Amino acid sequence: MADDSTYRITSEDPGADGAPVLGERDGGVLRLTLNRPDRLNAWTPQMAERMFALLREADADPQVRAIVITGAGRAFCAGADMEALSGISGARLEVDGRSMALPATLRKPVVAAINGPAAGVGLALALFCDVRFAAGDAKLTTSFSRRGLVAEYGVAWQLPRLVGQGRALDLLLSSRVVLGEEALRMGMVDFSLPREEVLAEALSYAGTLAAECSPRSMATIKDQVLRAQEGGLDAAADEAAGLMADAFASDDFAEGIGSYLEKRPPRFLGLGAQE
Amino acid sequence: MADDSTYRITSEDPGADGAPVLGERDGGVLRLTLNRPDRLNAWTPQMAERMFALLREADADPQVRAIVITGAGRAFCAGADMEALSGISGARLEVDGRSMALPATLRKPVVAAINGPAAGVGLALALFCDVRFAAGDAKLTTSFSRRGLVAEYGVAWQLPRLVGQGRALDLLLSSRVVLGEEALRMGMVDFSLPREEVLAEALSYAGTLAAECSPRSMATIKDQVLRAQEGGLDAAADEAAGLMADAFASDDFAEGIGSYLEKRPPRFLGLGAQE
Amino acid sequence: MADDSTYRITSEDPGADGAPVLGERDGGVLRLTLNRPDRLNAWTPQMAERMFALLREADADPQVRAIVITGAGRAFCAGADMEALSGISGARLEVDGRSMALPATLRKPVVAAINGPAAGVGLALALFCDVRFAAGDAKLTTSFSRRGLVAEYGVAWQLPRLVGQGRALDLLLSSRVVLGEEALRMGMVDFSLPREEVLAEALSYAGTLAAECSPRSMATIKDQVLRAQEGGLDAAADEAAGLMADAFASDDFAEGIGSYLEKRPPRFLGLGAQE
Repeated sequence: MADDSTYRITSEDPGADGAPVLGERDGGVLRLTLNRPDRLNAWTPQMAERMFALLREADADPQVRAIVITGAGRAFCAGADMEALSGISGARLEVDGRSMALPATLRKPVVAAINGPAAGVGLALALFCDVRFAAGDAKLTTSFSRRGLVAEYGVAWQLPRLVGQGRALDLLLSSRVVLGEEALRMGMVDFSLPREEVLAEALSYAGTLAAECSPRSMATIKDQVLRAQEGGLDAAADEAAGLMADAFASDDFAEGIGSYLEKRPPRFLGLGAQE
Repeated sequence: MADDSTYRITSEDPGADGAPVLGERDGGVLRLTLNRPDRLNAWTPQMAERMFALLREADADPQVRAIVITGAGRAFCAGADMEALSGISGARLEVDGRSMALPATLRKPVVAAINGPAAGVGLALALFCDVRFAAGDAKLTTSFSRRGLVAEYGVAWQLPRLVGQGRALDLLLSSRVVLGEEALRMGMVDFSLPREEVLAEALSYAGTLAAECSPRSMATIKDQVLRAQEGGLDAAADEAAGLMADAFASDDFAEGIGSYLEKRPPRFLGLGAQE
Repeated sequence: MADDSTYRITSEDPGADGAPVLGERDGGVLRLTLNRPDRLNAWTPQMAERMFALLREADADPQVRAIVITGAGRAFCAGADMEALSGISGARLEVDGRSMALPATLRKPVVAAINGPAAGVGLALALFCDVRFAAGDAKLTTSFSRRGLVAEYGVAWQLPRLVGQGRALDLLLSSRVVLGEEALRMGMVDFSLPREEVLAEALSYAGTLAAECSPRSMATIKDQVLRAQEGGLDAAADEAAGLMADAFASDDFAEGIGSYLEKRPPRFLGLGAQE
């Protein structure tokens, strides 16, 4: 997607090689890049802090309509930094179990461009994005059972809902490596592509979301799908009735119908700070 | 399936081109045809009213054992009629969110024969059938996000349970078109066939349900599967225990065993008005 | 997997052709074989009693780290013994609905090696294992609807969580036969192989679980996945936080990190009687 907005670097210090996450916005699409390529983008507390701050900032910024997360260099994210991990062995830490699920709870769509290996917490980050593009030869593994760990950060909830309970148990119990191509057949990723095309295709998909899909619709749909995982059909249907009535009265619906009948691109409203 | 029952038209005015839904019963199989072919069977309030009435009538008719829903002409259902939609833009309407899920809540199996495009509410109708046959080149799309709408009528609940949460978000956020062949790989449809074979295969499948499967078993199984989506394994297993005990004492079980041992077709009892 | 432990027969009377289930342990892997080959391993109350006793014994035995269930001869399990079934027709029996789900509730991983046909209760047994290997030409069928029965033993809960709700309804309503190859595409099994390789591959997979994966991790993961099917993401994530903190303080985590950094196989602790 191209528009006439300026190309802006949202990272406070974009030129610094030391910035653990880089942010660049192009039109309505914000690209966030895990940026420790010499460490296969191994996850650190500093990277987590920066990623979560950028995601929250994007959710409140009306100029951002879709977000893409990818990794610098040849990996997506090889998991928790082993030095950091060995440092906490034997200690009793406070953990925020909900932290990695942040992408799933934002109002704006988050797309993972899995350009290379994703393991452990790195895989968890990808699983909590809304849509996943992966290199066909990218190696994906949960890895927890081989480190004496558990299904971290709600992955025990999320993975079975993506691939089914049998495949989730296979992946979580064995920590076996699957490639992007097999992950596609399982539903663990939604698109499998040659490595050199993954980021471009993810950005193009996000660009289409930003240009053609109502931000208000997408925010409502994300919330509906997340909450419909609990409760029954009747409750979801009753809730949908109220949301449908709201939508029919909305400016975005008038624009959706109008642009369709006039065969022109829609001009939907952006989503700013939570109203 | 062929039997010696007469071929009956259940629609009150079957010859009228204006009837929005046509109903024809052949043996135990009722075929319901969306009948606005010049409008790609676009959904209207009149069509909804007629469809739901025919479905309820079929559920109470002991001669009907399985139902097939399809579209006249080259489409299944292109979604809500755009004229009707533009008429409601800006208005605040009462919506019955549960209405489209009716097929899933009936006692009798409902099979969708998706002969061509299915969009928006037309896709919702297909998703709430129990089993789906689709033309390999049929275009399927949720379409809500491009109209400023939401996941309508419990689709936010149903679609993730058919295809997984990741694929559901992909389809709902982007409203991208998938063909029947891709829908099969996702689990959004259960069979993908050449267009000219879709209806015949769906009718054949429904005929097998009508001839060889216990109506009482099918009604119980539909209810079990729908309710097991809520609650845990223990509750579902405990409920199954009571239902198994009932089944062992039933005439249909005696007939199921008897026909098996005697190597003859079963003669199961029909299901009439709710007992 | 080979280790220096002795090859032990756990069945009380292993040589007897009449033993309905044979048990053999090789290292950390216990193999349980349904043993009525001349009856296609048709399920009987005696077989059930023996199978469940062996499974419970294995769960408490620290030398067992993974379990494989398979069938003697050319079938996995053709379902309930027809003579036994016809004997209960018309009677009102007490049924323990939870009994077949036992493998899913154990702490240790259970792998099904579906070497041949699996029907009815035989399919249910396989579905409640954690991971499934099947012969590509093995015939799988629910079979309940053709006998006047219901979705037995929590299968209405389990099958949709493995394959999605649409495919589950197709399989349960029609009782149609699918082969292992199609079952793989659906997610009903996790691996499809030539018949002569099924058992060896399942044993090899179980051997890897026993040798390389933490028993404590696997027990926790099984419990997390089972319970995460109920409730929402926040609850699962909050629970994960506590389990992660426990894991970081555990001996198995220290061993997982240590063996990784030292590039040697891990020596995880075995799981004995429930602590």
